Amino acid sequence: MRKLLEGMRKAREASLLLATLETGVKDAALREAAKAVRDHRAELLEANRKDVEAAERRRLSKPLLDRLKLSEAKLEAISRMIESVADLEDPVGRTLYACELDEGLELYRVSCPIGVVGAIFESRPDVLPQISSLCLKSGNAVVLKGGREATRSNRAFFQILKEATEGKGVPEGWMQLVEGREEVHRLLKLEEYVDLLVPRGSKEFIKFIQRNTRIPVLGHAEGVCHVYVDEHADFDKALQICYDAKVQYPAVCNAAEKVLVHAKVAEEFLPRLVEMYSKAGVEVRGCERTRRFVEVKRAREEDWRAEYLDLIIAVKVVDHVEEAISHINRYGSKHTDAIVTEDRETAIKFMEGVDSSSVMWNASTRFSDGYRYGLGAEVGISTGKLHARGPVGLEGLTTYKYYLVGRGHVVAPYLSSPPRPFLHRKLDRTWREVREGRA
Amino acid sequence: MRKLLEGMRKAREASLLLATLETGVKDAALREAAKAVRDHRAELLEANRKDVEAAERRRLSKPLLDRLKLSEAKLEAISRMIESVADLEDPVGRTLYACELDEGLELYRVSCPIGVVGAIFESRPDVLPQISSLCLKSGNAVVLKGGREATRSNRAFFQILKEATEGKGVPEGWMQLVEGREEVHRLLKLEEYVDLLVPRGSKEFIKFIQRNTRIPVLGHAEGVCHVYVDEHADFDKALQICYDAKVQYPAVCNAAEKVLVHAKVAEEFLPRLVEMYSKAGVEVRGCERTRRFVEVKRAREEDWRAEYLDLIIAVKVVDHVEEAISHINRYGSKHTDAIVTEDRETAIKFMEGVDSSSVMWNASTRFSDGYRYGLGAEVGISTGKLHARGPVGLEGLTTYKYYLVGRGHVVAPYLSSPPRPFLHRKLDRTWREVREGRA
Repeated sequence: MRKLLEGMRKAREASLLLATLETGVKDAALREAAKAVRDHRAELLEANRKDVEAAERRRLSKPLLDRLKLSEAKLEAISRMIESVADLEDPVGRTLYACELDEGLELYRVSCPIGVVGAIFESRPDVLPQISSLCLKSGNAVVLKGGREATRSNRAFFQILKEATEGKGVPEGWMQLVEGREEVHRLLKLEEYVDLLVPRGSKEFIKFIQRNTRIPVLGHAEGVCHVYVDEHADFDKALQICYDAKVQYPAVCNAAEKVLVHAKVAEEFLPRLVEMYSKAGVEVRGCERTRRFVEVKRAREEDWRAEYLDLIIAVKVVDHVEEAISHINRYGSKHTDAIVTEDRETAIKFMEGVDSSSVMWNASTRFSDGYRYGLGAEVGISTGKLHARGPVGLEGLTTYKYYLVGRGHVVAPYLSSPPRPFLHRKLDRTWREVREGRA
Repeated sequence: MRKLLEGMRKAREASLLLATLETGVKDAALREAAKAVRDHRAELLEANRKDVEAAERRRLSKPLLDRLKLSEAKLEAISRMIESVADLEDPVGRTLYACELDEGLELYRVSCPIGVVGAIFESRPDVLPQISSLCLKSGNAVVLKGGREATRSNRAFFQILKEATEGKGVPEGWMQLVEGREEVHRLLKLEEYVDLLVPRGSKEFIKFIQRNTRIPVLGHAEGVCHVYVDEHADFDKALQICYDAKVQYPAVCNAAEKVLVHAKVAEEFLPRLVEMYSKAGVEVRGCERTRRFVEVKRAREEDWRAEYLDLIIAVKVVDHVEEAISHINRYGSKHTDAIVTEDRETAIKFMEGVDSSSVMWNASTRFSDGYRYGLGAEVGISTGKLHARGPVGLEGLTTYKYYLVGRGHVVAPYLSSPPRPFLHRKLDRTWREVREGRA
């Protein structure tokens, strides 16, 4: 416990220094980190080999072993990923709002790091370099807790990245590695030391974290995504979207798990949908009304909440768009839902009425992704509503603070009678110009 | 408990409808509410008179009684406040980001309500109409829990506002009134039903709430604000700011509680500061080094953390700006802190190094306020770092969602080899134009 607290204090101290680091220093350190991963690849592969051997002895499943295993190619991809983070625009120091409160009294709202980010993840060792790079770029200290299977790989990455970056002007202690299950439980209680948790892993893992901490958690436990095929849908678009959203990659959070079909088109659309899904090996489970038109398994109540992450889909017939909206708001996970329709008014009603982080109109749910959305790197997808929602870019690791610059201004004149009025005039100047003396 | 859950369910349902209300409907309902307060003033004053009598029998302190008591003038001010909320720009439906992902595939990030806001407040009955108006304007349902002393006043406001607004197209159940201490404890556990808590009251009250819920809390428990007088300070500005920040209104969260003075100017500045404060009736408590130059009480360790909210101030001599920064980051409350200096570099170092929601350069800490910052109505001042920080305007009661509009787009072509590239081109169109068919 003492060691944990010691590390957390160091991370907090480092975070205060990180907040003021110049972009150039952070980017140089990131490039150094990318180089260090290349230079130490033998060491990394050796540590990983031991992890993989231990995991094989404990008979880990094939998919888990695949995720655990590093290779020369994976390491090179990691180095490139770190370099691509260096190439991103600095999310810190951006002027988000500037206002002249009165003559010579200027207010700036400027983006800044959050402080200390806690990253808790399961077996994939490439999460460590990824989340560390994103934190460094955004000026946050990071406390890392990886899965037991990857202990040696994580230690190796940690040492290599720490040495590469701390040597380059980045404050000592900005990265902390935490090991052991008990330490996680302790970490979850340390709300004074950790400002934000970014967990990666299974939905059970994320739910466990959400239920056991008061620290804000950025992420999502599951994606129960819907495609609603409206009475005014173009069937070709609907079939393409239903196919893409389910079949293209069923194991991901933005894959569709349910199709809702308007009653007026159910008889015509459902046979085509089921034929298409059957050819693709998708098991269809239908509500009573669906089963009047197609021969499929019966969907049970629990099917409406299920996240299969597999070639299974549940289909329900609804009477109108309002029923589709309320079904989604009741059973969905507020992740991503889509409507297929040629009718603008129905589309708007659906999009504004569905309480999810992303709502698609005539597009696949699978677009819900930070890279595809043009946000640069993706920190995660949030189904929470506060701070950041939906696919979250580097911006999600920042907050803002206000800078007020005066010439000795005091509030008294603005509160006397008659009070001096405020100007509240939009300013085109940026904080960067002020700090560089250009203003 | 059943009644509470019933109400919370209604609030959640109403919130989904509120999210899609047109600005005109919300504003008309607000004007109706303002009128209803005027029309029912006799009823409101009568209910309030009974609260005040009961409070007098229970010998409530004079300041508490003053805060509890309504008058014709106070009611008129409340009506005007509601009208001024109607006049504010709608914070919902703003396009925050728009990007053409590919030909005909358009992404919009649009502001929307959070959902259900829980407002828990102490004796002042004017909080109920204020927070309700802000919630309606921002499209949020609101669950209200007022202080016991104001039970009858709160019931009267609640009935009047509910009838006035629900009659005007606002969904039934959008306002819920909760009574009784046990219900608060239950409310704090209902994280599925409440998206954000906005508490108002004493610091003990707010700390109690923060410690007893997993629902995000917007607000601050205390303001331990500092003024740092640098070696390059203009003494006249420093004295004016120290005076204004402490004396102008000592009972508020953005009043200064500490003055830090650079060692190089301590001998010259401290006598002038203490003389000024003595004339204003401010008790000064100094560190050892301060007491070498001026005769003042000794400051103890607990003085550095104290929020006096009174005519008391603690003064410390520091060796350099770095010591000032680390003192503030250690003992402050991340609310508002100021530096007085003519040296730009020192100012920048201080502003970027102090981890507070507002940092002032040559201006009083008392400017830290939503109205003064030009944010329109103030929802609260947040010392938390996520979601909203510092003085929070109506925007703090909103989040955003993504709308993606395609023409049947699916992800498969972007993942094939060679992959179809994304355009990621900035769009100048707004969601409002799309929904009105103008795009």
